[in-house]
Amino acid sequence: MAELSERSGVPAPTIRFYLRERLVPQGLLTSPNQAVYDESHVRRLRLVRALLDIGGLTVEAARGVIAAIEAKSGNDFAVLGQVQYGLTPRSRDTGHDAAAEADVDAIIDRQGWRVRDDNPARASLAQAVTTLRAIGRPELLDAIDDYARAADSLARREVDDVLAIDDAEAQAEAVIAGVVLGDALLSALRRLAEESALADRIRP
Amino acid sequence: MAELSERSGVPAPTIRFYLRERLVPQGLLTSPNQAVYDESHVRRLRLVRALLDIGGLTVEAARGVIAAIEAKSGNDFAVLGQVQYGLTPRSRDTGHDAAAEADVDAIIDRQGWRVRDDNPARASLAQAVTTLRAIGRPELLDAIDDYARAADSLARREVDDVLAIDDAEAQAEAVIAGVVLGDALLSALRRLAEESALADRIRP
Repeated sequence: MAELSERSGVPAPTIRFYLRERLVPQGLLTSPNQAVYDESHVRRLRLVRALLDIGGLTVEAARGVIAAIEAKSGNDFAVLGQVQYGLTPRSRDTGHDAAAEADVDAIIDRQGWRVRDDNPARASLAQAVTTLRAIGRPELLDAIDDYARAADSLARREVDDVLAIDDAEAQAEAVIAGVVLGDALLSALRRLAEESALADRIRP
Repeated sequence: MAELSERSGVPAPTIRFYLRERLVPQGLLTSPNQAVYDESHVRRLRLVRALLDIGGLTVEAARGVIAAIEAKSGNDFAVLGQVQYGLTPRSRDTGHDAAAEADVDAIIDRQGWRVRDDNPARASLAQAVTTLRAIGRPELLDAIDDYARAADSLARREVDDVLAIDDAEAQAEAVIAGVVLGDALLSALRRLAEESALADRIRP
């Protein structure tokens, strides 16, 4: 356990919590208080930590994602989709109106995107659009095609990176990392860029 | 209260909760059980709801943002920055290493960004970079300049929109909407774009 903690960089109490919550498989017991862990445990530990701490997923949502990875068979589009769908949206669903759904359809059409009707991101997007209107900030709505184009170009690169990976488990993990860490990266980068753009405009 | 609920689209029990938590100012009491609310209450209600439900902020963090808006005086760069800094990062801070800090400095340098040392997004970005390395997904790190360029172009447009607004309170609200709802928009759009890019690659 001490060695596993050192190799993964995850504290031992945290590892015990993950084991208890079945987020990480048990090691092979070699004596009553000694277990053997291998490289797969190290990788899983890091992934679980990323899901919970960076992605902000609940333990239950993380367990769903892990289950999807373990149930996978080969390079399967459906599985990669399931993994992506399993990542909970980052906001509570407070509902959206039919006009926002039409907006979402129009955005998807304009980008020429092929997206299933049950992609949960449709509802997330419709909710954000509804709120933009409700709080009277429709100017962000004018910018939405800029956002969509940026998302499209980042997504194409991400998918190329994912498909370049051989191992199916590693592919699923890359999808998770791309979705979850990509959100964290973009969120932080936008905050930095916003401060800089404001500084440029106000004190050139 | 019934009229306020109808005009703002926020249910009465939720409004009472916001009033109790001092997120929305009390109305002017005209009788023991009758209060007058005006347009500023309606706008504040919608903003608070966006902060909590879309932004995922805690009540305490939302109160900090509201306090920054109320303390503002005129079109002030420092205040807009404070509002932006007050928006909690979306991930728990699990620490980052010195190498990641150097990466962040290098990214900021390459973009030519002017960012204060105490911008909390530096730590958020360093944390995401640390995790990318830890989980063995450095290929996302190669893409980080693409992410930074996308963030930069979106931020410039956002700042132009914010500075086009006359009223200082409305400006602060626009910063919040841009940061918080921009995250939600990009997150949802990336998920849609990822599914489409995957579909294009696997089943053209």
